[in-house]
Amino acid sequence: MRVGILGYGNLGRGVEAAIRQNSDMELVAVVTRRPPESLKIATEGVGVYHIDDIKNLTDMIDVLIICGGSATDLPVQTPEYVKYFNVIDSFDTHARIPEHFANVDKAAGESGKVAIISVGWDPGMFSLNRMYAGAILPEGNDYTFWGKGVSQGHSDAIRRIEGVVDARQYTIPVEKALEAVRSGDAPTLSAREKHTRECFVVAEEGADLARIENEIKTMPNYFADYDTTVHFISLDELRRDHSGIPHGGVVIRSGVTGFNKEHKHVIEYSLKLDSNPEFTSSVLVAYARAAYRMNKEGQKGCKTVLDVAPAYLSQMSGEELRKKLL
Amino acid sequence: MRVGILGYGNLGRGVEAAIRQNSDMELVAVVTRRPPESLKIATEGVGVYHIDDIKNLTDMIDVLIICGGSATDLPVQTPEYVKYFNVIDSFDTHARIPEHFANVDKAAGESGKVAIISVGWDPGMFSLNRMYAGAILPEGNDYTFWGKGVSQGHSDAIRRIEGVVDARQYTIPVEKALEAVRSGDAPTLSAREKHTRECFVVAEEGADLARIENEIKTMPNYFADYDTTVHFISLDELRRDHSGIPHGGVVIRSGVTGFNKEHKHVIEYSLKLDSNPEFTSSVLVAYARAAYRMNKEGQKGCKTVLDVAPAYLSQMSGEELRKKLL
Repeated sequence: MRVGILGYGNLGRGVEAAIRQNSDMELVAVVTRRPPESLKIATEGVGVYHIDDIKNLTDMIDVLIICGGSATDLPVQTPEYVKYFNVIDSFDTHARIPEHFANVDKAAGESGKVAIISVGWDPGMFSLNRMYAGAILPEGNDYTFWGKGVSQGHSDAIRRIEGVVDARQYTIPVEKALEAVRSGDAPTLSAREKHTRECFVVAEEGADLARIENEIKTMPNYFADYDTTVHFISLDELRRDHSGIPHGGVVIRSGVTGFNKEHKHVIEYSLKLDSNPEFTSSVLVAYARAAYRMNKEGQKGCKTVLDVAPAYLSQMSGEELRKKLL
Repeated sequence: MRVGILGYGNLGRGVEAAIRQNSDMELVAVVTRRPPESLKIATEGVGVYHIDDIKNLTDMIDVLIICGGSATDLPVQTPEYVKYFNVIDSFDTHARIPEHFANVDKAAGESGKVAIISVGWDPGMFSLNRMYAGAILPEGNDYTFWGKGVSQGHSDAIRRIEGVVDARQYTIPVEKALEAVRSGDAPTLSAREKHTRECFVVAEEGADLARIENEIKTMPNYFADYDTTVHFISLDELRRDHSGIPHGGVVIRSGVTGFNKEHKHVIEYSLKLDSNPEFTSSVLVAYARAAYRMNKEGQKGCKTVLDVAPAYLSQMSGEELRKKLL
């Protein structure tokens, strides 16, 4: 399988690294909006191409993994490039998925290619687990907790405050809430009861720290509904202690069975990730295998993780899977 | 969807209860080897039929859920009845799955029906999670822990000892081992380090308790390789405190990503089940929906949970799933 990467940020580099862990795949091209000669990629002998020349690569690439952002890149790129390639994206604006799906499905239906959208862990593996658990236990409650991990959106929101040089925000699940859910008690939990927010902030010299802290803690949507802690640290400390991009989370469904609903069951799926982008990349690469295989079988159109039979993701044959894994 | 149940033990009764939680399904027949008039089922107005008459029910049943045992029932029943019905079974003798698959696939290919075998939680949901996690993190280690829960096989082994009236054996994961695995350290663990075994035994009056305890603890395969605790209790206590069939377990994969394999990730799936048979039944019922839909689309042959696209399990449409769950 010959794989191309479009967009060479954290996610694109993660895909490059992940391809090396899959012996049936080969990286054949990195495509960028930047001047190609300005890009130094990690894999020797692989061409870097400008996005304007992407249509010349159709014979060379079996699946294109699109590593752009959900706000402005993917809504344009995925429907456009599925005209020429099987594609994978990690579109993660939950509310706009139906619209994105419709656009990509139309283009993929016309081109005869397969697109798998919204691949990653949420949406992605978390969605899968919500779906499986809900189908198995129709009477029950779903809970999703995020963290402990860095929220890019919340970190950015702090950076926009006057007097802030840099910031890192961690979302942290409340252990007591997790325990209550795990017990099968099906509690009703407010935003504040589920997560706390911890902020590490580098301020300009002489900035009014009390004002900054107050602006953070009272920021609507982002922080006002949570118990938020603010720590002011130096830029050196931020770089030394908070340069990673860890994340993770937990999806739990608790439900009941029995003629009198007398038996409780708890299904839990959890992730602890040292690198959020590298894990997402690893999921993208597994689904790239699926897109390639499904298209080879004659399938076309837009899919999500909910539409892909699990065995398509594995390097093993059906026979091996049944023997070794089932 | 009109569902039939073959075999009315714990699993069959669990299926009967689970069907009531799925508004798109209806129980239409219970089939048994016993005299039908001797069977009292929980659902009014549903016919009970003798297994000799099962071929008369083909027009009435969309999917037959076969609730027999893996040792002698399913190897015969599943290949036989897939000649007439879409079928689901919970065949769980891991080592014999390839052979069972081949037999069922041959018969299903000829009849044009769909069979989904080895449905449940292990094999079943645990297999699925081992497969997804292995495809996402190709470099890593798998761990499966079972319990805390009742092992039917180990309880039976104790009951065969002279002087034992009844017994219940709990398999318990060792918390320290779980923690080591969750840390991402990828330890090598012996059987003894992963699970302990706790036995509650009712002995005949005047039986030699020391001999019974010794026979349990030294029993090869079942107990000799584990730290085993034996408690002698009365029959009343056994009935009062150990009549449930709880089970559960944990599947963990820890793996690495990055150009220098510098980032660790831990994927964990866990189940805590008040009733092992009722949870298994709930999984069977969700896959019954999938078998029916796949066959309606023209698919045939033997499948496992690894071959079934997740969306087939859900009562929701693709559109609803994308909007509400993804």
